[in-house]
Amino acid sequence: MFADPVQEIERAPELQVTEWLNTKSPISLKGLLGRPVIIHAFQMLCPGCVSHAIPQTQNVQRIFEQTDLAVLGLHTVFEHHAAMTPVSLRAFVHEYRLTFPIGVDHPGETGPTPRTMAAYQMRGTPTTILIDRKGCISAQLFGQIEDLALGAMIQALLSEHIQSAGDTDPRDVCTPNGCSDPSF
Amino acid sequence: MFADPVQEIERAPELQVTEWLNTKSPISLKGLLGRPVIIHAFQMLCPGCVSHAIPQTQNVQRIFEQTDLAVLGLHTVFEHHAAMTPVSLRAFVHEYRLTFPIGVDHPGETGPTPRTMAAYQMRGTPTTILIDRKGCISAQLFGQIEDLALGAMIQALLSEHIQSAGDTDPRDVCTPNGCSDPSF
Amino acid sequence: MFADPVQEIERAPELQVTEWLNTKSPISLKGLLGRPVIIHAFQMLCPGCVSHAIPQTQNVQRIFEQTDLAVLGLHTVFEHHAAMTPVSLRAFVHEYRLTFPIGVDHPGETGPTPRTMAAYQMRGTPTTILIDRKGCISAQLFGQIEDLALGAMIQALLSEHIQSAGDTDPRDVCTPNGCSDPSF
Amino acid sequence: MFADPVQEIERAPELQVTEWLNTKSPISLKGLLGRPVIIHAFQMLCPGCVSHAIPQTQNVQRIFEQTDLAVLGLHTVFEHHAAMTPVSLRAFVHEYRLTFPIGVDHPGETGPTPRTMAAYQMRGTPTTILIDRKGCISAQLFGQIEDLALGAMIQALLSEHIQSAGDTDPRDVCTPNGCSDPSF
Repeated sequence: MFADPVQEIERAPELQVTEWLNTKSPISLKGLLGRPVIIHAFQMLCPGCVSHAIPQTQNVQRIFEQTDLAVLGLHTVFEHHAAMTPVSLRAFVHEYRLTFPIGVDHPGETGPTPRTMAAYQMRGTPTTILIDRKGCISAQLFGQIEDLALGAMIQALLSEHIQSAGDTDPRDVCTPNGCSDPSF
Repeated sequence: MFADPVQEIERAPELQVTEWLNTKSPISLKGLLGRPVIIHAFQMLCPGCVSHAIPQTQNVQRIFEQTDLAVLGLHTVFEHHAAMTPVSLRAFVHEYRLTFPIGVDHPGETGPTPRTMAAYQMRGTPTTILIDRKGCISAQLFGQIEDLALGAMIQALLSEHIQSAGDTDPRDVCTPNGCSDPSF
Repeated sequence: MFADPVQEIERAPELQVTEWLNTKSPISLKGLLGRPVIIHAFQMLCPGCVSHAIPQTQNVQRIFEQTDLAVLGLHTVFEHHAAMTPVSLRAFVHEYRLTFPIGVDHPGETGPTPRTMAAYQMRGTPTTILIDRKGCISAQLFGQIEDLALGAMIQALLSEHIQSAGDTDPRDVCTPNGCSDPSF
Repeated sequence: MFADPVQEIERAPELQVTEWLNTKSPISLKGLLGRPVIIHAFQMLCPGCVSHAIPQTQNVQRIFEQTDLAVLGLHTVFEHHAAMTPVSLRAFVHEYRLTFPIGVDHPGETGPTPRTMAAYQMRGTPTTILIDRKGCISAQLFGQIEDLALGAMIQALLSEHIQSAGDTDPRDVCTPNGCSDPSF
């Protein structure tokens, strides 16, 4: 009858994006329900993003391209706004040969933090977010993640399958305590 | 009534080891049935092993230590035998601070290739072998493997569960066409 | 009697810079005569600059800080001009913690290539230019240079000393065939 | 009239080697007088040697091959003697494709430290020793050295020239306070 606001906490908040690169049509998490999703939140002038997390995301796209994993970038500019405009981002994406879809996070209305970054309560960049097939946040990690661990985390989501008829509405398995996987 | 010899092809051959390092008691694949296993076959003077595959195996042990993955090394000396004796191996293991169990492959009787290496038809070192919970070879890879891909391969084995009563004898699910996982 | 125009070819062209970062007062090659100079020409969105040549230049500044080597950066934007403005460069310099003086190359009047880049006939970025104590170009290299080789090239300039009275006007030792070092 | 024993302290002690690899005839520092020398003292099972200092020495040989720099390795086994015999060293040199001459340090008579290592009072491996054209130790460094710094140190030795007649006996410029270079 009515949405349980507590329950919604665990669901991955929808992306709020002003424009997309590397995709012909806008992307929404709602549209990706049923597929695991990895979101790499970065800033183009963040050294840790450029040296580690962005090439890692590019490698994730390549290595898991035969799976139904959705690989997304999110440009969450929360500092040096004048230096990291969409114009600069497009040049960056071109020079670094990035091919995964990248959304520009919607600027904040009252402060420097953009909207999606705020909704996820990210601490900074790089942040890696893993979302399971039911649209729930499986992990949200700030800083560098080792490739071995990230590969395992992605595969854990890929190995999850929505098995019974009762799971057809993926929202049903999200609870305030987290998202339970009936296959475990 | 009788063992099907073809069926046995897909089962991981038992290790033939003359001595073990980093473990108090000898290890057998039979004893590990039910757990996924990663075997890193190496030579202590193989540059690609030393720079990439051995530290990768050490990282695998650390990252997956909370799981039931078994991490094994296998010293498969097929060249420079006088230079890579067990005495040298022990000094190597000490200097490189390796902590995973390492077996010394049994020398071959008629040629330079040791027995386990021959049984697996390995091409050289480094070779990484992944064995599933049912004791079947899931993958056998020669050369360097990317961490992202290896992490995913390991997690795929960890996510497999033997679910029904009919699976209690893991040998039943091995066929000449490979080892089928009933959960897929 | 008159300046030999050919002779001038070997002298390092003066820098044409619209603004400087990391220095209180503008820098000129004329003002640095008598000291060896390394100029690292880069673009902030050039991947090879960011991953290799810029950290190398930062290391050069640190390792040779006890010498009289002058370490300069030059932002030679010849593409994506709207993406690599001085505003973006300042954010980049801040985020990457760069401490060596960096000049912004003067935009070209009739094309995309800035003036100093054109005067030196650079092929692209990264370009490393070494100038000796007499103000002559000792080396100009496009692409990545190994640290061992660069360290040696810098030391070769540092080891040169203007020894005799006849060398007090450093222009005298520049010839159309290059800059001869009387100490060799 | 007579040798000053104190003066001899600064002269590089002669190598005491039981056998040489990668050279047809034995090498002595006496025979190299007039040329700068770099000696990389290592153990084949020393991780810091294998990952950093040995490839660095190989790169030094390649980068400075047009100069008169002499590049030497010295296998200074002071631990795990049974594991690092000349037989093992030869396999190691073969597998790692090392091409610079390598001497096996003479075993110590009363302890684990070999003779040349003791004469130089080395603290361990890797140790890098630089010897100038006059046969004096210019630098002796324990641990990893940055390529930029090592390149500069080598070039400083290469740039030194024995200029006057008074320098023909290189021992004359060695004093208890170090080896003075008349060109500075």
